[in-house]
Amino acid sequence: MAGIAFGRFDDSFSFGSLKAYLAEFISTLLFVFAGVGSAIAYNKLTGGAALDPTGLVAVAVCHGFALFVAVSIAANISGGHVNPAVTFGLALGGQITILTGILYWVAQLVGAIVGAYLLKFATGLDTPTHGVAAGVGAAEGVVMEIITTFALVYTVYATAADPKRGSLSTIAPIAIGLIVGANILAAGPFSGGSMNPARSFGPAVASGNFADNWIYWVGPLVGGGLAGIVYTYVFMCSDHAPVSASDYP
Amino acid sequence: MAGIAFGRFDDSFSFGSLKAYLAEFISTLLFVFAGVGSAIAYNKLTGGAALDPTGLVAVAVCHGFALFVAVSIAANISGGHVNPAVTFGLALGGQITILTGILYWVAQLVGAIVGAYLLKFATGLDTPTHGVAAGVGAAEGVVMEIITTFALVYTVYATAADPKRGSLSTIAPIAIGLIVGANILAAGPFSGGSMNPARSFGPAVASGNFADNWIYWVGPLVGGGLAGIVYTYVFMCSDHAPVSASDYP
Amino acid sequence: MAGIAFGRFDDSFSFGSLKAYLAEFISTLLFVFAGVGSAIAYNKLTGGAALDPTGLVAVAVCHGFALFVAVSIAANISGGHVNPAVTFGLALGGQITILTGILYWVAQLVGAIVGAYLLKFATGLDTPTHGVAAGVGAAEGVVMEIITTFALVYTVYATAADPKRGSLSTIAPIAIGLIVGANILAAGPFSGGSMNPARSFGPAVASGNFADNWIYWVGPLVGGGLAGIVYTYVFMCSDHAPVSASDYP
Amino acid sequence: MAGIAFGRFDDSFSFGSLKAYLAEFISTLLFVFAGVGSAIAYNKLTGGAALDPTGLVAVAVCHGFALFVAVSIAANISGGHVNPAVTFGLALGGQITILTGILYWVAQLVGAIVGAYLLKFATGLDTPTHGVAAGVGAAEGVVMEIITTFALVYTVYATAADPKRGSLSTIAPIAIGLIVGANILAAGPFSGGSMNPARSFGPAVASGNFADNWIYWVGPLVGGGLAGIVYTYVFMCSDHAPVSASDYP
Repeated sequence: MAGIAFGRFDDSFSFGSLKAYLAEFISTLLFVFAGVGSAIAYNKLTGGAALDPTGLVAVAVCHGFALFVAVSIAANISGGHVNPAVTFGLALGGQITILTGILYWVAQLVGAIVGAYLLKFATGLDTPTHGVAAGVGAAEGVVMEIITTFALVYTVYATAADPKRGSLSTIAPIAIGLIVGANILAAGPFSGGSMNPARSFGPAVASGNFADNWIYWVGPLVGGGLAGIVYTYVFMCSDHAPVSASDYP
Repeated sequence: MAGIAFGRFDDSFSFGSLKAYLAEFISTLLFVFAGVGSAIAYNKLTGGAALDPTGLVAVAVCHGFALFVAVSIAANISGGHVNPAVTFGLALGGQITILTGILYWVAQLVGAIVGAYLLKFATGLDTPTHGVAAGVGAAEGVVMEIITTFALVYTVYATAADPKRGSLSTIAPIAIGLIVGANILAAGPFSGGSMNPARSFGPAVASGNFADNWIYWVGPLVGGGLAGIVYTYVFMCSDHAPVSASDYP
Repeated sequence: MAGIAFGRFDDSFSFGSLKAYLAEFISTLLFVFAGVGSAIAYNKLTGGAALDPTGLVAVAVCHGFALFVAVSIAANISGGHVNPAVTFGLALGGQITILTGILYWVAQLVGAIVGAYLLKFATGLDTPTHGVAAGVGAAEGVVMEIITTFALVYTVYATAADPKRGSLSTIAPIAIGLIVGANILAAGPFSGGSMNPARSFGPAVASGNFADNWIYWVGPLVGGGLAGIVYTYVFMCSDHAPVSASDYP
Repeated sequence: MAGIAFGRFDDSFSFGSLKAYLAEFISTLLFVFAGVGSAIAYNKLTGGAALDPTGLVAVAVCHGFALFVAVSIAANISGGHVNPAVTFGLALGGQITILTGILYWVAQLVGAIVGAYLLKFATGLDTPTHGVAAGVGAAEGVVMEIITTFALVYTVYATAADPKRGSLSTIAPIAIGLIVGANILAAGPFSGGSMNPARSFGPAVASGNFADNWIYWVGPLVGGGLAGIVYTYVFMCSDHAPVSASDYP
């Protein structure tokens, strides 16, 4: 069973690692471009109307499809995190070192920011930001983001990181994308359904509006971290006992 | 050909079995959270309007995507039932012992209840429950649930349990999720399209409203049980004759 | 290269063949139940309003998902035709004998009729039938069905029947289902987008309305047959020349 | 590492190559028929209303599903480009010779034109063409098409062309189709979201309206070419250094 590790500098700056950061940058850029783009598209088509169920379907389907592809295209290069909460959850389970994880975060956040700015240019409109809806408190928003991000990172573990995943790994990127699509259909009208600090941070930078932004750091990191710990210490340990001597080399 | 078996206590309480119950608990919790959440989301966005075709698409797509993922993330641990009717159908075909099946039911029902209560907290709203629509009788509702659950459990058998499933097993969770999505698009405005006693029971407990709840036990268990019997005794027996001596060890 | 073959009676009535007919019956029943059910659901929710884009999305997505599953669950038993036009196209390419094909047709048509009657009971409403829209002539309707069914049967060949299909076979049922979903989004407001004589015939029997029904035999059979001939004689022959001596055993 | 190559005439006119051109012709025809058809269907159902979010979902889902299938059915014959920008991006990375690429373009463009004319006949309506929306400049439209086509061709490389793609290749056609669906949900109300010169050119020919058509050549070719260069020279080279002697035979 792997544990949390800080990592070595020469590993984190190898040529393979640099390619991984670039892959995370590109995937997050393209995911944010499509996802935030679908929210701007709704505003464009309706003249800025309040979200209705059709808009929610459009935004949820777009995020689901785009995240599936963003994960796919980085899967064999960087593992396809595309999300600081995923990287955090994987670091807590020992799947990535802390040092490399920090550099993944930088790549993801810069990708999200560049994606949001490109979107501002291509649409001529401001980027909408995540925030809790009217009548929803910050605590409810945080809980919503914890549970939905728990589902996302648990899915990453069960379908992509678990050595016992078998043929599930073939459809892992689809599962990772569509759990986000499903969760947005539930959480959208309450917390917005981010599950991803980079997805929320990029548009916040591009629009200069950081109200509520902390919710999309706290909720996803708590939920993703919890999923990493639960999956690692319950489901990835030996089949016969929680911890036994034979787990140690 | 396997038959119905009660099972042994030491098997049902092994460490591997305890992990399976936890996996069923988590998967059902996350499925109910997203699925029931999409129904609450529609109410939030429309101020509690009657379901329209857009709302039906949102709810059906959410259930389809969420069930696909819920099945995927439990597939290699518990088999990914996420549904008492699936467990019942598999028990009738000898794929799981009765004792283990009962513990699966407990895990699924507790997961559904916890998911519904978390949803109440995160949204601040009550959980809507399944019930037949105006102008639809209980008999019609039961028949609707029988047929749609038959489709679901038959899909579980053909794509996941049948030893001759081949490469279909790779996409089995997608098929299992999307048949529920498709069936909700048909059954939604009549019986609600549950196909899952846990999906109906969790919100009933959280809201204290058990009206019509029996329909979502009777219909799914009859439909799921029928599918288990038909598939097992017709399609999983020898290719040359319905029953032959060589089937017995 | 295979040619058209009539087949032998003992092959067509073996136990394996009887299971195949039952599988086609069940798959077509469940597909028609969900697909036609989505059209009835739209009528129920809107009080019988004219189809709008939301209703088109609901119907198209339901047919796409349901056909994907219907093909999956019969794939390893009967090949998963679920459609007389597919069986016809495969017979013209020598993939199934004429005699077995006729029995597939019977199973598919009876399944569609039973599915439509069950739907009438479960919903208490009449089953809507396919017909060309106002302002669309029969010739246009036939052409629409020819092209869309050509796409469907060509997909069956390229992803499921071609020995060179490779890993495509894993996702073949998804492709077969979703090309129908895509084509309904285009053809729905013109010919209805059937691509399947059984899908059109079952509701026609249950409602006693056979107006325009011939269009959904002629169009799909011409389109499906054409796809079978083109794919077999162009793409499934030797790589070096259209016909060569080495093709013959 | 492969480089750009002009190619040999005897390779480009072998029987296998002729089959590839026919496969590209058929796939592009069927993709354009469904995709443009969904736009006509919206006009038919709404009497020519301005695009709303429901119409955007219908058009995006149709293009996503149809492109997935169009790529699948040509994958093992021609590689499944179905798009001059994909062919261009693959030529820049040395995956197809320039001569064969030119013949792919011809097949794709003729397929798109025939598809558009068949659609005019089957619907009795004119084919709508791509153009930037009111309030969107040509520069913004070009940038939108560059970024979205970059995402598409990058996906083709990462999931289908990269020798390290592994089991991703099984779901590659789904990823290629759904990134187009996601991008249309973002770009639709601005540039239309073409990502494909053939998709835009066919309806332009059939309707005789070439206004803005240049945008759908310049944007997709720049974006697709960029993706081909970036992916080839960064991600497909050796893991240890950008270029080393051991890369050369």
